[in-house]
Amino acid sequence: MKSLLDTISNPSDLKKLHPTQLPDLAKELREFIIDIIATKEGHLGASLGVVELTIALHYLFDTPNDLLVWDVGHQAYGHKILTGRKNIFNSNRQFGGIAGFPSRNESEFDAFGVGHSSTSISAVLGMAIASHIKGDEKKHHIAVIGDASIASGMAFEALNHAGVSDANILIILNDNAIGIDPSVGALKEYLTKVKTDKKLAAQNNIIKALNFDYSGPIDGHDIPKLLSEISRLKAVKGPKFLHVITTKGKGLQKAEEDQVTYHAPGKFDKISGERIPKEKSVFTKYQDIFGKTLVELATKNDKIVAITPAMLTGSSLNLMLEQFPKRTFDVGIAEQHAVTLAAGMATQGLIPFCAIYSTFLQRAYDQVIHDVALQNLPIIFCLDRAGLVGEDGATHHGVFDIAYLRCIPNLIIAAPSNEIELRNMLFTAQKGLKNPIAIRYPRGFGAIADWQKPFSAIEIGKGICLQKGLKVAVLSIGTMLKTVQEAIKNSKNSDEFSLYDIRFVKPLDENLLHDIFKNHEKIITIEDGVISGGFGSAILEFASQNNYKNDCKILGIPDEFIEHGSVEQLQNKLHLDVKSLAKYFDLL
Amino acid sequence: MKSLLDTISNPSDLKKLHPTQLPDLAKELREFIIDIIATKEGHLGASLGVVELTIALHYLFDTPNDLLVWDVGHQAYGHKILTGRKNIFNSNRQFGGIAGFPSRNESEFDAFGVGHSSTSISAVLGMAIASHIKGDEKKHHIAVIGDASIASGMAFEALNHAGVSDANILIILNDNAIGIDPSVGALKEYLTKVKTDKKLAAQNNIIKALNFDYSGPIDGHDIPKLLSEISRLKAVKGPKFLHVITTKGKGLQKAEEDQVTYHAPGKFDKISGERIPKEKSVFTKYQDIFGKTLVELATKNDKIVAITPAMLTGSSLNLMLEQFPKRTFDVGIAEQHAVTLAAGMATQGLIPFCAIYSTFLQRAYDQVIHDVALQNLPIIFCLDRAGLVGEDGATHHGVFDIAYLRCIPNLIIAAPSNEIELRNMLFTAQKGLKNPIAIRYPRGFGAIADWQKPFSAIEIGKGICLQKGLKVAVLSIGTMLKTVQEAIKNSKNSDEFSLYDIRFVKPLDENLLHDIFKNHEKIITIEDGVISGGFGSAILEFASQNNYKNDCKILGIPDEFIEHGSVEQLQNKLHLDVKSLAKYFDLL
Repeated sequence: MKSLLDTISNPSDLKKLHPTQLPDLAKELREFIIDIIATKEGHLGASLGVVELTIALHYLFDTPNDLLVWDVGHQAYGHKILTGRKNIFNSNRQFGGIAGFPSRNESEFDAFGVGHSSTSISAVLGMAIASHIKGDEKKHHIAVIGDASIASGMAFEALNHAGVSDANILIILNDNAIGIDPSVGALKEYLTKVKTDKKLAAQNNIIKALNFDYSGPIDGHDIPKLLSEISRLKAVKGPKFLHVITTKGKGLQKAEEDQVTYHAPGKFDKISGERIPKEKSVFTKYQDIFGKTLVELATKNDKIVAITPAMLTGSSLNLMLEQFPKRTFDVGIAEQHAVTLAAGMATQGLIPFCAIYSTFLQRAYDQVIHDVALQNLPIIFCLDRAGLVGEDGATHHGVFDIAYLRCIPNLIIAAPSNEIELRNMLFTAQKGLKNPIAIRYPRGFGAIADWQKPFSAIEIGKGICLQKGLKVAVLSIGTMLKTVQEAIKNSKNSDEFSLYDIRFVKPLDENLLHDIFKNHEKIITIEDGVISGGFGSAILEFASQNNYKNDCKILGIPDEFIEHGSVEQLQNKLHLDVKSLAKYFDLL
Repeated sequence: MKSLLDTISNPSDLKKLHPTQLPDLAKELREFIIDIIATKEGHLGASLGVVELTIALHYLFDTPNDLLVWDVGHQAYGHKILTGRKNIFNSNRQFGGIAGFPSRNESEFDAFGVGHSSTSISAVLGMAIASHIKGDEKKHHIAVIGDASIASGMAFEALNHAGVSDANILIILNDNAIGIDPSVGALKEYLTKVKTDKKLAAQNNIIKALNFDYSGPIDGHDIPKLLSEISRLKAVKGPKFLHVITTKGKGLQKAEEDQVTYHAPGKFDKISGERIPKEKSVFTKYQDIFGKTLVELATKNDKIVAITPAMLTGSSLNLMLEQFPKRTFDVGIAEQHAVTLAAGMATQGLIPFCAIYSTFLQRAYDQVIHDVALQNLPIIFCLDRAGLVGEDGATHHGVFDIAYLRCIPNLIIAAPSNEIELRNMLFTAQKGLKNPIAIRYPRGFGAIADWQKPFSAIEIGKGICLQKGLKVAVLSIGTMLKTVQEAIKNSKNSDEFSLYDIRFVKPLDENLLHDIFKNHEKIITIEDGVISGGFGSAILEFASQNNYKNDCKILGIPDEFIEHGSVEQLQNKLHLDVKSLAKYFDLL
């Protein structure tokens, strides 16, 4: 017999079902997601939590004419499956396949591209104002946003504006009390109280105080309740807010029990939910190098504190939290606050390590300039997931940081080439440094099994020569070094190449650079960041200032957004893999 | 007879007064501020509004041991005068004089450097956590923040964190219902209701819902009340919130009546308050060129909408608001929301002009990358106050934008060299452009009296040659052109110089650049932005890609924060004035 899901290619098929059939569809949709993610990997828990909500929304609203935006997009798998992508859903997050997040390029049902959190209310408010200006008062504009995302400042700014508009928007709070890690903050505590105290929801209500028509909280797994409440709200004009309670990982017991792990569990058994262990690596993730090293340092230096805006587990700062709970701060999705909080701490002599992904530091750019660098406060930014991040794709690659940080006075920019270098840079940074420093390192495994060596200080702004040749100098920055080394080894004229690990994008090792420019005909720079304004560009500026006329070539990420795929696939596409580089070196 | 103010060099002198003397001191302090700002100019209204609060805080707290942070800092003149800077206050905002904002370099009483809004709660929370970690439970940490600033997302993030901390902080809301323009948003409406409805303040309270000990609202001009309430709060542990009502411009009738103008009124008569008219210029401010041109364009193109995050009057977007109130949106201090709101509108076919100062776009950097450029939505960023801004100083110079925008794919970056070019770029941008564009222009007057010419479209990425010589090519971007032109005219070998207005930092006019590099020995680039990663750096990248070996020199802002002073003084200091450039050209 055909399943209900088999009959559905898009929401118009869904609308043919009787409301009483929807719970069965929910069961099938949940199984479909589990089946595929169990083998193909991806973000599991969030999508399982909103299966009923997803069905209810597409059942009741006229998508894509009505505009539906999923905040962040981790939870949008059900949406993708019901809107024409069921048959290609097994290509999720793969090179050439569909993206892990909603994307306007991919489907007209994806009203707004997402990835970074807390954008949805601004986006639907803009859409609703546009509808109003165009005289279309019938269109609906819906944002689904989680309790972690709504606590971010940007979402508050949007609520603050929406509350004084007469825009026809419906904000659905998908409240599961967890982001990637458990939600934090006063708003979260307030929402928790609302769940148990209906009187509080009715009376002392933040959302009502911001002029919204508040309703809820209701059970987000109860389809009849969802249908009746959303139907009622469809007829209400102006800004509306529906508070829905869901369980992250709903329907897979293991995922409900361990919501942090099952946010993105890797491969797992689709029946038992048991995770299938990855082949054990002798190597360690850079994240763990960071987390473990920080604990070592904090044990000896009681001025060290650690801050992260909602990247606790992802950055391995949970290790620090376990050991030093009073010196570790997960402030939630609040990048701006995290950085200026660190600045406040630094004025009082603490040494803040601020763990944040490269792509999310974009959210606190002004604070880095205005609150940290301008006051020259010695904060240590640990820029995780720098460079290509792989399957998360265009929204998440950490490829802009060198370019956007390099123009900031006072800031040191370091890019360790391996695990031991990362450890030593973390060590150096907490030893009385007078400037702020950004230390960037990639997602994933290093290549040194025996990394836990005694610490050794690194001279700030000092690069090193790894190989001496006579013709071409290759200047590498960060963990590209390993690829570059192999490429040189594989190239025909490998002994004609000098190889340098420049280590610091800023300040540059000018003595070393003079030596390099004086003794080589050609200079090649290699980075896993954008070429425009990046590390290579800094080398060109040095050459221009010092009248060097050597041939200089910059290799890095071109001026385009890079899609998703494995890091290896993407490096290959961008000619930044060993083979492509060796071929390039052969032609020099 | 000595006045009370004469006896006060710092807060320890203030503490010798009897509480009953403080109202007289307030009168004197207000007069002192008015006397000096009447002739020296500066931010008047905000500081007049907090005279009593300033006195009360320094009277009751043990500053600088207790840590006091003024949000933004427009209101900190009284604070500066009472904390050792009375005798140099007449150098306020002048080159070599004291800064217009609190600055840690200037005084130990300035606990945190400010300028951009909404940082104070994060900063004092960081300080309070540091005190707690260091075991100092007696220190007080106070932030004074206005009702416009507290509505910004960053402030919400900090409140959300502070509410679940046990940090010993006092947040004082200085509620005068106005920022630079009148405050907007649902929170502001809520605060207004609280003022008139004590029951609302007691019951349905946003601040209380965020776990703060809320008190107020109280009259911020009533010193006895301030003293008694702040004294009471000193003894309360944990996060406290005091809602104080003040009148911006208090004590100068004209300033109370026209709070927008008297935010920074220029010179005025200290008795009557009448503004002293500036010498009438035959020229027009770039801001007005923008505002008037936008009205012209919006009259013919009904898809145009305008958005600003609280820079309505400053950017002259008030002209658009007057003509098209339903298509003009001041969203308050909410840069992140403003940009993504524009993105939402653009998905529905509207043409959003987003007016924002260069320095404040730093606050929405991620949104420009993630919500606008990645989706390639044709939004028009009108980057006001690009380049050196003068007296506002280091926090406000718009010198980073070229560097931080240049690395973003899909984004066009234009820098008109004069008023007519600005008009034509605005015209071009709304004629079906397929990409987002940033158009940067400076604060202040242009140099063309007769600027209101018929529109003419500009080819995107097309530079122009203004003068042909044989030896040196000077590549200018933006309004530096006038200075460069004069410098060439004043140089000895002026006919050896070619001069180009490159107009677009991105995309570069590659045809023109090939022509330039083939026909000149030396290339000089000139910009009023940072050298690191800026326009000149883009030219070096072009040269590197195309194997050109010409002498290239980049002139621009060096890698340091630039202090305050007139634009002319700063240009002179940085060797970017006519005389310095002419001298430089003579040596080529």
